[in-house]
Amino acid sequence: MSKIYVVGIGPGEGRMMTFQAKEALEESDIIVGYKAYIDLVKDDYQDKEFYENGMRGEIERCEKCVEFAMAGKTVSLICSGDAGVYGMASPLLEVAQQHGFSDIEIIPGVTAALSGGALLGAPLSHDFCVISLSDLLTPWEVIEKRLRSAARGDFCIAIYNPASKKRADHLKRACEILMEEISETTACGFVRNIGRDGCEKKLCTLGELAQQETDMFVTVFIGNSQTRIENGRLITPRGYKL
Amino acid sequence: MSKIYVVGIGPGEGRMMTFQAKEALEESDIIVGYKAYIDLVKDDYQDKEFYENGMRGEIERCEKCVEFAMAGKTVSLICSGDAGVYGMASPLLEVAQQHGFSDIEIIPGVTAALSGGALLGAPLSHDFCVISLSDLLTPWEVIEKRLRSAARGDFCIAIYNPASKKRADHLKRACEILMEEISETTACGFVRNIGRDGCEKKLCTLGELAQQETDMFVTVFIGNSQTRIENGRLITPRGYKL
Repeated sequence: MSKIYVVGIGPGEGRMMTFQAKEALEESDIIVGYKAYIDLVKDDYQDKEFYENGMRGEIERCEKCVEFAMAGKTVSLICSGDAGVYGMASPLLEVAQQHGFSDIEIIPGVTAALSGGALLGAPLSHDFCVISLSDLLTPWEVIEKRLRSAARGDFCIAIYNPASKKRADHLKRACEILMEEISETTACGFVRNIGRDGCEKKLCTLGELAQQETDMFVTVFIGNSQTRIENGRLITPRGYKL
Repeated sequence: MSKIYVVGIGPGEGRMMTFQAKEALEESDIIVGYKAYIDLVKDDYQDKEFYENGMRGEIERCEKCVEFAMAGKTVSLICSGDAGVYGMASPLLEVAQQHGFSDIEIIPGVTAALSGGALLGAPLSHDFCVISLSDLLTPWEVIEKRLRSAARGDFCIAIYNPASKKRADHLKRACEILMEEISETTACGFVRNIGRDGCEKKLCTLGELAQQETDMFVTVFIGNSQTRIENGRLITPRGYKL
């Protein structure tokens, strides 16, 4: 029996990975992940075995990791961003438990709320929420309740999975819910393809955000009541007297 | 005129820094930061100049960075964890703006919500909030409102700065507010000195958490209604059918 690392590789660019994450990949016999993420690391680890599958293949991916580890291999299950935040750490721990396998190390990484925030300025410098608009595993009513709660708490908000082909209007619906609670002039921004080719960013108001076309490669930032756009940056003050 | 990097160095251990962060420190002439954070990097960058000061010295630290950069130096302003999350990116951007200095790059890092979560298991695998209990810059009423909003939204919660010498009872007060909204049996945990000497962790219920002694080196995790403790790990399910 060997070991499973669940590794957050960051947004994509190798430089945004931690040393700890690279060590885990180098120590592994086989690297397992969603095929788009395997593509991000394949060239740098050509001596490794790889197991990749597609979306909706998450549980099979976890089963394979346990199977490989129980066969004596050191396994790295990679996640983009962090290993925990909408990552594979949770399902892997659940699946491993069913098989009585427990030699698992979770290696954190820079999630899109942090890497995207850095590109826009400092939007998450005060209390914030991270909310996914994907209703594949979460009822829309729960997502809606969380959007309202976040707005009522005057949190900064990072939104993951704002849209997909099947959910083209989710960000618009989310913005409409938020605008029932907070101003349509709230400072916002979004980033596409963080740390990857075609990286782009834009700042706008919440009202303008509702009209934006987005996709699953976009991370959205909604400011709190104090957040402002200055010199092309989204800044949430921490409260210092200047 | 040269450049300022605001660098998230992660929890402390050098291995948990990104390659991008290390590159920025190596490229810099001078490294600026809170003295406890300078101590974390000093040995690895002995060829650099350093400028350190104490708590409450944040704005002076930013002023110095701009002064050094305008004098032609490449500066790294270091933050523990991430550069943005309760970090120096926001005040530095505000201070630099007052001086008309804009050549600033924010380099994200692994914040305690991610590194602490990885040590406990997968507590932040679903929508979550990050809330600081420090009322140095934020009125307690705002903190209280955010705690209630986070509980009403059934968010997982990561709590920063749960206590300090002057605020010994803040975590207890926070737990009492949360227990007005959610069950005292809610699965929780906390980690002290993540990625540093004396790292320790503990899992407990929300009711037990209210009785815990904590300090400013502790990060606290409060589960959502689905979070459970299994085999010594705090796991928030993502919703997959197993």
